[in-house]
Amino acid sequence: MTDPTMTSIVLRKRPVGEPRVDDFEVLQRPLVHPGPGQVLVRVIFLSIDPYMRGRLSEAKSYAEPIQIGGIMGGEGLGEVIASRSPDLVVGDVVVGTRFWQSHVVADPKQLVKLDRHGPPLASYLGVLGMPGTTAYSGMTDIGQPKAGETVLISAASGAVGSVAGQLAKRAGARVVGIAGGADKCLFVQETLGFDACIDHRVVDLKGALDEACPNGIDVYFENVGGDLQRLVFARLNPFARVIMCGMVAEYNDTSPRPGPNLMFVVRNRVRIEGLIVSDKMHRFAEWRALAAPWVMEGSLKYREDIIDGLENAPSALIGLLSGRNFGKLLVRVGPDPA
Amino acid sequence: MTDPTMTSIVLRKRPVGEPRVDDFEVLQRPLVHPGPGQVLVRVIFLSIDPYMRGRLSEAKSYAEPIQIGGIMGGEGLGEVIASRSPDLVVGDVVVGTRFWQSHVVADPKQLVKLDRHGPPLASYLGVLGMPGTTAYSGMTDIGQPKAGETVLISAASGAVGSVAGQLAKRAGARVVGIAGGADKCLFVQETLGFDACIDHRVVDLKGALDEACPNGIDVYFENVGGDLQRLVFARLNPFARVIMCGMVAEYNDTSPRPGPNLMFVVRNRVRIEGLIVSDKMHRFAEWRALAAPWVMEGSLKYREDIIDGLENAPSALIGLLSGRNFGKLLVRVGPDPA
Repeated sequence: MTDPTMTSIVLRKRPVGEPRVDDFEVLQRPLVHPGPGQVLVRVIFLSIDPYMRGRLSEAKSYAEPIQIGGIMGGEGLGEVIASRSPDLVVGDVVVGTRFWQSHVVADPKQLVKLDRHGPPLASYLGVLGMPGTTAYSGMTDIGQPKAGETVLISAASGAVGSVAGQLAKRAGARVVGIAGGADKCLFVQETLGFDACIDHRVVDLKGALDEACPNGIDVYFENVGGDLQRLVFARLNPFARVIMCGMVAEYNDTSPRPGPNLMFVVRNRVRIEGLIVSDKMHRFAEWRALAAPWVMEGSLKYREDIIDGLENAPSALIGLLSGRNFGKLLVRVGPDPA
Repeated sequence: MTDPTMTSIVLRKRPVGEPRVDDFEVLQRPLVHPGPGQVLVRVIFLSIDPYMRGRLSEAKSYAEPIQIGGIMGGEGLGEVIASRSPDLVVGDVVVGTRFWQSHVVADPKQLVKLDRHGPPLASYLGVLGMPGTTAYSGMTDIGQPKAGETVLISAASGAVGSVAGQLAKRAGARVVGIAGGADKCLFVQETLGFDACIDHRVVDLKGALDEACPNGIDVYFENVGGDLQRLVFARLNPFARVIMCGMVAEYNDTSPRPGPNLMFVVRNRVRIEGLIVSDKMHRFAEWRALAAPWVMEGSLKYREDIIDGLENAPSALIGLLSGRNFGKLLVRVGPDPA
């Protein structure tokens, strides 16, 4: 009988442009054991998010670069299978970071224990987790949509956009989504209940924006950047607010694209503000408390896109960066708790 | 003996690129008389400001375009010489708009009466007027400089920048100006008391910015745009605030220049916000009350650049747009009150 092993995904080399599967490496090694005060967690779900592209680069960013040979970081969820801490017992379900592994040894202070009998576990990584909190903070701290305003959401079927738009609907705004493909647009309109959704692959994106936003745009939730950004910014109303959450269409660029001329910011007194949810730690628990009942009653809609197998995490991330996922992207690393 | 006449400057044709003197026309016509409830004002000073370039264009902007053949608008100051209103008497000094004329007929409700025995009259068009209020509102509503932060002010010797920087100094910040030429930089450092001033005509503007702002930039008061904008935005610190007040370096452009790539807004959680002071009417009286004592005691420094003769207003505006003025630009239309 062989010793038990664990699997980790490490960064082998820094991608140039679009990451490739061979920029990563799957390592097997003997299973680690928890030290005094630590626990051993068996990973169940790993969250794959666009910001991870930044961590693959050496450039200074808000998230620390992953070192070459280092284990990929990222939020995950798992079950405690061994504990040398009084704070957690075997069977507890927790969320934490550094989860591109089959097993994680951690200090309980780095983990948040979840209610196993509340919302579905995976929802804690999406609609109730970091992406949902990002949407909530963006709308609460920056967007502040009002009844009758027009709110435009890019990457509208995604983990952040889908929640941002539903929050704007709850505020009484007209909500327009942008997504890639007919199936995503159908989901955005029919399931999420947005007033309209634009497929960004259409030929006449300008015309589609004008038609869907006849009164201009008061709030824009920016998740993608790229050519769309210029078209949207040109249609912002006086006193519009832009939540700058991400620019995923540009993350694989090897040199920065020119941006829009900013005279519209003066002319229309626009407010553009960057958002990184880790600056707003108080919003996490606040959002979980607010939204968990909505998830359980079914009034807050969400969709998950689950890939099986830790070894597929690199290709999942690559797909996310080109919009191939449909809903919150998760990797299933192991089975649900018994 | 001929009837008394008055002079007006009207827009003859829309400038393309840099305005020319022959885009304007000087008209003589018989002196108008006030109707019931109106007053006749003899103009003393006319304020020349960068935003006026926008009003010469047909493009939608925050200020209404001047019509072809219409009288140029703009803040001015004058003395009531005839009154058919109980609200103002002959000898009152007032500020108002539509002042590219030697005489103005107006409703007293469109005018603000000034204290003739307080600060120098011209200061009501500059340091205590629209430009000063713009600086005050920008720092109060958007910039919010804190002790120890680095505040960068473009067009630092100008009517807005000079006040903005002095307010940041009062808040305890390190204040760096940018101005065009050694004489302006000397004024910014020696008279206004900024910690440093960069001549934007130097060859190595990047190096000069790095040297003057070794800890990056926390607040940027944007008055000029152009190439400088990209260099400054690349040096903004996390949580920096940008007051987008104007982009005078681009006002004569015939097509918009590309702007900076905005990924830094996400990465550094920057807040960029447009400012037009007419949105903040409550700040005008508030600022006059706060700053008039500072002007009278000499602790708030300012400089005026006064051109003689209403007929020189067009060339004064043209000069302003290329940075030829040094201090708040005014046109003297008539003598001070007796």
